[in-house]
Amino acid sequence: MPDYPTIRLKPKAEARAIRHGFPWVFANEVVTDRRTRTLSAGSFAVLEDAERRPMGLVTVNPDSKIIGRMMDRNPEAVIDGDWIAAKLRIALDHRARLHDTPYYRLIHAEADGLPGVVIDRFGQAAVIQPNAAWAEAHITTLADALQAVTGVTCIVKNGSGRSRSLEGLSEDTAVLRGTLDGPVQVPMNGATYMADLLGGQKTGLFFDQRPNHAFAATLARGARVLDVFSHVGGFSLAALAAGATHALGVDSSAPALELAARGAQASNLGAKFETRQGDAFAVMEALAAENAQFDLVICDPPAFAPNKQALDAGLRAYERVAKLAAPLVAPGGYLGLCSCSHAADLSSFRNSSARGIGRAGRKAQMIHTGFAGPDHPQLPQLAESGYLKAVFFRLNS
Amino acid sequence: MPDYPTIRLKPKAEARAIRHGFPWVFANEVVTDRRTRTLSAGSFAVLEDAERRPMGLVTVNPDSKIIGRMMDRNPEAVIDGDWIAAKLRIALDHRARLHDTPYYRLIHAEADGLPGVVIDRFGQAAVIQPNAAWAEAHITTLADALQAVTGVTCIVKNGSGRSRSLEGLSEDTAVLRGTLDGPVQVPMNGATYMADLLGGQKTGLFFDQRPNHAFAATLARGARVLDVFSHVGGFSLAALAAGATHALGVDSSAPALELAARGAQASNLGAKFETRQGDAFAVMEALAAENAQFDLVICDPPAFAPNKQALDAGLRAYERVAKLAAPLVAPGGYLGLCSCSHAADLSSFRNSSARGIGRAGRKAQMIHTGFAGPDHPQLPQLAESGYLKAVFFRLNS
Repeated sequence: MPDYPTIRLKPKAEARAIRHGFPWVFANEVVTDRRTRTLSAGSFAVLEDAERRPMGLVTVNPDSKIIGRMMDRNPEAVIDGDWIAAKLRIALDHRARLHDTPYYRLIHAEADGLPGVVIDRFGQAAVIQPNAAWAEAHITTLADALQAVTGVTCIVKNGSGRSRSLEGLSEDTAVLRGTLDGPVQVPMNGATYMADLLGGQKTGLFFDQRPNHAFAATLARGARVLDVFSHVGGFSLAALAAGATHALGVDSSAPALELAARGAQASNLGAKFETRQGDAFAVMEALAAENAQFDLVICDPPAFAPNKQALDAGLRAYERVAKLAAPLVAPGGYLGLCSCSHAADLSSFRNSSARGIGRAGRKAQMIHTGFAGPDHPQLPQLAESGYLKAVFFRLNS
Repeated sequence: MPDYPTIRLKPKAEARAIRHGFPWVFANEVVTDRRTRTLSAGSFAVLEDAERRPMGLVTVNPDSKIIGRMMDRNPEAVIDGDWIAAKLRIALDHRARLHDTPYYRLIHAEADGLPGVVIDRFGQAAVIQPNAAWAEAHITTLADALQAVTGVTCIVKNGSGRSRSLEGLSEDTAVLRGTLDGPVQVPMNGATYMADLLGGQKTGLFFDQRPNHAFAATLARGARVLDVFSHVGGFSLAALAAGATHALGVDSSAPALELAARGAQASNLGAKFETRQGDAFAVMEALAAENAQFDLVICDPPAFAPNKQALDAGLRAYERVAKLAAPLVAPGGYLGLCSCSHAADLSSFRNSSARGIGRAGRKAQMIHTGFAGPDHPQLPQLAESGYLKAVFFRLNS
């Protein structure tokens, strides 16, 4: 039987929420004595309630506001390769049901039972984001289990991003297994995307937007498409594959646009796809000055409101995006606006978007609201993980 | 130039909201003098702000809490066949883009510019719900325009439902044009449904659930399906068409189950479909006693919280549905829970559902949230019209 240290909740801590599935223990909720402070980041401990009853096994990080993350409700669980493989198999069963080809988010952190761990799968390759200290400490075991369960031959560790710094982890990206020979081709929504698993944003591709790309594609037959903040062409290529006549991708990143163009080529849609590099706000203003009109305009900006402090400014930025985009939509055309901001809830984001459209003098119907796809599960107890929203409007006049 | 009477907002009325697109004027917001009280239900009037500036043309119903509904921002608009036909054409363009075959909600009331009017299209037939007094008064003009724009040969007027009584309209259902020879076949999500346009619930079919049926179908390959509150088999038939091995439809309505069974036959899926008539709660308890297990369970109950007064009891009922359904889901299976309650917002409904699942001793991931389909547009200013929610969970243990 494993001999774990213990950490104990203060009497006023939210033991009830944790019992009901909330997966985090905040630093101000535990009794921190000399022993707690010496626990190493990424080690395991038994969480006890104020009456010293064991509640489960947590991973500890004294350097993080989230001092404990629930690993297992069984306080005697052993976190080893078998334990990790069991989680991977449960997650894989779900994705294999959802997708005919193995391109998806395989592990979405807490909701898939591996706290702080994100794994995206690209056929024979996979990218691990170990965003919690325990995963960094057990990266070899994780990689072994991933290889055993899925059969992938190439594994990249992506150690970039904000979440790692909150855990006190440094930037570190490397190929852990196999080799990688340039961008990977990803079949999705009838197109072929190019994903740079080493140098791209996040894990190289935003699988979370897949159903929203698909929804946009249902509006795209015969349409002229404008794809603002296009990254590697998520919305453009899906729309072209569904019969759009032309798409213009706008992004500030030349490498992203280059990957988008290569994706269009790989999809035999290169002749219908153009790109314009530059600041999205400036490009939208320039397009308006040119009296450009599109039947489908999509704006998928970076997170303008990543945290509560940035909320007001973020909502103003979303309103501005809507106000600049609306004039570019032809009468009867469609406008899709996305937010990946944790702090902006659906209602605030929708209202800001509608206000921007109104300020542009346009009238709108809301026709669809979408979220991250089902390969991005959420814990019901952790509503914050519902960061992505996509709202589609029709602009009749 | 038309000579309309006027109604005037009180100084403290929400003129700003109306200017920004809110489509309703409440009775307590207008100056009601002798003349206002004599306006006939369904007549038209110019709405003025407190400073007597015209704001638009409204339809008036002194018998309703919603005394005015915005018809046109142009106070000199003439509401005739041409005016209605223009709205129908704009709405039709959108649906024709969305759907290859003409089976959809064609008009979704305020959001499609025809206040209080719902029109569902079933190929060569259409059902009009005139849920506002002006539409009742102009039903012939509406039917003429509908026939001219769409070419339908059969038009049913469905005058049932709660909204009509709020407008002081009586129950009245009739075939206005052409003839109807029994239930209509409706192709949707790969199956064929049977819709009773005269005697069924609402307009005979719930087009709003189409994308949620489609999502459930993505989970259905090889699955045993339980479809509680099945009505005419919305979820069952889509799941069977997508490869479910077996589906059991449960409903209290024998005629609905009969239509579901006929739909399964028409879809060549009759051998895989069974029904059980009875109270849904009692049937779920009986199935649990039989240790029945399903890979996909869907519960799509009637509105338990149709208004604010019913909210608390409604949320308890949703929790109970979840608690009774969860034990019937096999490990690794899926549970889809729906609400068509205006008063229960997404967050309350999700929380009640998650609580019910937890009380059944099951752990859940939330994998998807869906709403009514894009043929059910909403005005951004009228968030209440977002009544339908479908939340899908995966139950791993």
